[in-house]
Amino acid sequence: MTTKLSRLLASSRNHLSKNILCGKDGNLSDGLPLHTFTSRAGISTAGQNLGIKGIAAPYTVFKGKAALSVTPILPTFTKLDSGLHVVERRGVMMLKFIPAIGERKYDWEKKQLFALSPTEVGSLISLGASDSCEFFHDPSMLSSNAGQVRKSLSIKPHSTGSGYMISLTVVNNVEKSRDNLSVPFTTAEFAVVKTACSYALPHILGWDRLTDKVARGHASNFKSDRQLMDSEWDK
Amino acid sequence: MTTKLSRLLASSRNHLSKNILCGKDGNLSDGLPLHTFTSRAGISTAGQNLGIKGIAAPYTVFKGKAALSVTPILPTFTKLDSGLHVVERRGVMMLKFIPAIGERKYDWEKKQLFALSPTEVGSLISLGASDSCEFFHDPSMLSSNAGQVRKSLSIKPHSTGSGYMISLTVVNNVEKSRDNLSVPFTTAEFAVVKTACSYALPHILGWDRLTDKVARGHASNFKSDRQLMDSEWDK
Amino acid sequence: MTTKLSRLLASSRNHLSKNILCGKDGNLSDGLPLHTFTSRAGISTAGQNLGIKGIAAPYTVFKGKAALSVTPILPTFTKLDSGLHVVERRGVMMLKFIPAIGERKYDWEKKQLFALSPTEVGSLISLGASDSCEFFHDPSMLSSNAGQVRKSLSIKPHSTGSGYMISLTVVNNVEKSRDNLSVPFTTAEFAVVKTACSYALPHILGWDRLTDKVARGHASNFKSDRQLMDSEWDK
Amino acid sequence: MTTKLSRLLASSRNHLSKNILCGKDGNLSDGLPLHTFTSRAGISTAGQNLGIKGIAAPYTVFKGKAALSVTPILPTFTKLDSGLHVVERRGVMMLKFIPAIGERKYDWEKKQLFALSPTEVGSLISLGASDSCEFFHDPSMLSSNAGQVRKSLSIKPHSTGSGYMISLTVVNNVEKSRDNLSVPFTTAEFAVVKTACSYALPHILGWDRLTDKVARGHASNFKSDRQLMDSEWDK
Repeated sequence: MTTKLSRLLASSRNHLSKNILCGKDGNLSDGLPLHTFTSRAGISTAGQNLGIKGIAAPYTVFKGKAALSVTPILPTFTKLDSGLHVVERRGVMMLKFIPAIGERKYDWEKKQLFALSPTEVGSLISLGASDSCEFFHDPSMLSSNAGQVRKSLSIKPHSTGSGYMISLTVVNNVEKSRDNLSVPFTTAEFAVVKTACSYALPHILGWDRLTDKVARGHASNFKSDRQLMDSEWDK
Repeated sequence: MTTKLSRLLASSRNHLSKNILCGKDGNLSDGLPLHTFTSRAGISTAGQNLGIKGIAAPYTVFKGKAALSVTPILPTFTKLDSGLHVVERRGVMMLKFIPAIGERKYDWEKKQLFALSPTEVGSLISLGASDSCEFFHDPSMLSSNAGQVRKSLSIKPHSTGSGYMISLTVVNNVEKSRDNLSVPFTTAEFAVVKTACSYALPHILGWDRLTDKVARGHASNFKSDRQLMDSEWDK
Repeated sequence: MTTKLSRLLASSRNHLSKNILCGKDGNLSDGLPLHTFTSRAGISTAGQNLGIKGIAAPYTVFKGKAALSVTPILPTFTKLDSGLHVVERRGVMMLKFIPAIGERKYDWEKKQLFALSPTEVGSLISLGASDSCEFFHDPSMLSSNAGQVRKSLSIKPHSTGSGYMISLTVVNNVEKSRDNLSVPFTTAEFAVVKTACSYALPHILGWDRLTDKVARGHASNFKSDRQLMDSEWDK
Repeated sequence: MTTKLSRLLASSRNHLSKNILCGKDGNLSDGLPLHTFTSRAGISTAGQNLGIKGIAAPYTVFKGKAALSVTPILPTFTKLDSGLHVVERRGVMMLKFIPAIGERKYDWEKKQLFALSPTEVGSLISLGASDSCEFFHDPSMLSSNAGQVRKSLSIKPHSTGSGYMISLTVVNNVEKSRDNLSVPFTTAEFAVVKTACSYALPHILGWDRLTDKVARGHASNFKSDRQLMDSEWDK
C-alpha cells in the first residue's frame, strides 16, 4: 500500500495541490488495522515523515483524537582543523503529534514537534509506573523571538494505573493560539517507547560512532591518541 | 550433526518424498539434549525454518506436546520517488508452534504461525511475574475472508509463580477445525525471549537502519536534510 | 605490559618448555592491580585465552583461590544446498575457572571450562538478589563415554546479601578425581556479567547476523523471501 | 557555533597563547541553554576533549560549581605472534570534572580525570536509588611514585531521594593540594549515565569486536579455531 501512497505523493507533488490527500499510512507501527491520514500537501507530508535522509521509520501510535510518532534524530558532527570530529548539533528523540480530523484521518499539516534532549530521554526511560514528568521548551530561546512560543510536554500515568497520557500544549503569543494534543499510551505502547529510547540514547549521544570507529580498526592513528591520553590519564 | 541434517534434507529434496523424515535439529537452542523432529517434506522444512534469506537462527524451546520457536523478521523498505525510504512491511517477532507427534518428534508440516507486532512485543517484554496477556489476530482482516480464521495467543504465568504457559488457539470456521498448541516456558526460557525481544524491537522498527545510515557517513546529503528539518524544528 | 607478555609467550613457544611461566596478565578486567599468572606452556596459554580467532577479550575476575573468566562464543553457521545458512554449533557463554597456586599466580593448565547455553544464560540474567541456580553438564552426553565426567555449576547469593559465590565441581569417574573451584563475585562484578551476558545473548543466538544481513541491503533477494514468507504468514 | 569554536581553537593553536579562551561548547549534551567554557590553551583543550581519534561525543552535565563529562574509551588490542589479538590496555569509562570559574564558564585547564574500570562501571549501573559507592585510585600505583596522588570518587544519593551527588577528591601529597569537585545529578541525568554505561560496558570490554569479527564472516579461519576449542570444550 505504500507503493500506492508513493504514487499519490508523487502525483500530488506535480500538482502542488493544497487539497486534502487521503492515503494509507505505510509506517503504521502498532497492532491496529491500517489508518488513513490527511494532509493538505503531499510534498510537505513527505518532508514531515522524513527522519534522516533516505530512511523514515517512526514508531507511531494512532488514537482517536491524535497520533504520536517517535523517531530518533542522530547528532551531526563537524570536523575541526585538528582532524577531531565534534558534535555540531546534538541528537534528539523527535516526538510528532498529529491531530485527528475524522475517523482514522489525521492532518499532518497541523502536526506539532517536540524534540527530547538526551537528559529528557533519561527522564522518560526512568519513569516509574506512578511517576509523571513535564518539560518546557521555547523554540526561540536566546533569540529576539524568545517567549513568543511556549511548548510543554507532560507524561502522566492513567488513574487506572496502566499506561500514560502524553500531552503537548503549544501556546503562541503572536498568533494568540493555544493547541493541545493528547495521546493515551497503553503500558505496552509505552514499553515500546522506553525500550526503543533506551536503544536510541547512546546513538543520539553519538557513542555508536565512537565504538564503530575503533571496531573498524584505525589502530595506528589510535595509538598516538592513546599516548596523548595516557599522559592525561595518570595525572 | 547439522551436516548430517543438511545431507538428509538435500537427499529428501531430490526424492521430493512426502515420507516422515527424522533428523537431528541443528538449531536446538535450549540446554536439553538433542531432539529429533519430524517433517513430511524436507524441502518445506527448510522453508519453514527460513527467517530471512540465508540465515535461520530461531530460539526454539522443545517440550512434550509442542515446540515453540521465536525469530525476528525485519521490516522491508520501499523507496519513494523523493529518494526517501519508508517502511513497506513492518517487522514482526514471528512465533512458530510445532506439535509433537511422539517422543522428541515434531511435525513441522502442522506448524502454526503468530506474528507479534512491535506493540505486542512491548506487551510481552513489560509482562510482570504475575501478569498475563492475550492477543487476537485475523490473518484475513480487511479482506473478504475476514472472520474465517481466528487466532489467539495467550501468555499466562504458571500457578507456581515461575515461568509462563504460552498457548496458541487457531479456529478455522471454513475447515471447522480448532487447534490448540501450548508450550510451558521456564523463567529462564522466558528471560531469553524477553531479552532477545528487547534487543530485536528497535530492529523490527527499522531503527538500526536509521543509525547505520548516518554512522557510515552520508554527511553531505545529511546536511541538507538537517536544514530542511531545522525549519520544522524551531516552529 | 602485554607486549612483554607477548614476547615471553613467543619465546616460550620457541623452547616449547613445560616450565612454569610467570607473566603479567594483559587481559585483566577488574579494578585491581595487575596479577601474575602461571602456565606450564606458553603456547597452550595462548590457546586457552583464545575466544574467537584473532580476538581474546574475556572479562576476568581474579580472587584468592581461583580466577573466573567469561567470554561469549558465537554460533557457527553451515550453508545448506538451498543457500540457507543454519546454525551448526550454537553459541555459548564460556566460563573458565583457573585455580590459584600462590599469591596472584594462576595455573592456566588446570583450568576447567563450563559452557552456558542460551537458556542457562537466561537463568543467570534473571537471577534475583536472593536467588540461586545450578546447572549440570556431561561433556560426553549421548556418546559411549556418557557419565564418565560430571560437571555442576552453582551460583549462590552470599549470606550477607551482596554478591554471589560461583562454584564449579567436576567429578571424573575415570580418573577418580573431584575438583572444586569457587570464585566469590561482588555485586558489581556480577552486574558486569549480567549486563555483558544480556548484550551477548542475541549474539550467541545468531540474531545479530539476521539483522546485519538485511541492514546491509540484500533487498532484491530479500523480496522473494518475503513473498515466500507471506504465504506462510496469512495461513 | 562549533564552527566558531573551531576557528577559535585553530587560531589559539597558532598563537600557542596561554590566555583565557572563552567559546561556546559544541558538545553540550543536556537540556540547558549553551554554556561558555574557559581554557588557558586551545590546543590542550582540543586534546582534553579528545575521546578517540576523530570523534568527541561526551555526555556533559553543566552545573553551578563544576561540569562533569562522561565518555567511553575503548580498549586497545595487540597482536601476538600467533595472530591472536589480546587486550593491551583495557577500556574505561572516563569521567572528566571541570571546575566553574564564573557563571557558565568552566576552566578546562583545571579538569580532573577519573577512569572507571569495567567492574566500577558494574557498580555504578547496579546502584539502587538509596545506594552509594566510592572508588579509590592511585594514578602511580605500583610505580615509585605510588601514594603521591590519591583520588577518590563518591556517588551518593541526595537526601531528598532523587538524584545523586558525584564528587571527586584529589589529594596531591607532593604539591600539598587538595581538590574537591562535586556535580549534582538529577535522576534523569543519572539515568542517561546508567543507560549509556550499560550500552558502553560490552564495548569497553572489547566484546563488540568479538561479535563483529565473526559477523563479517571469517568462517574458514574460524573453523580451525573451533576445532581447537572443541577439544577443550569436552574435557
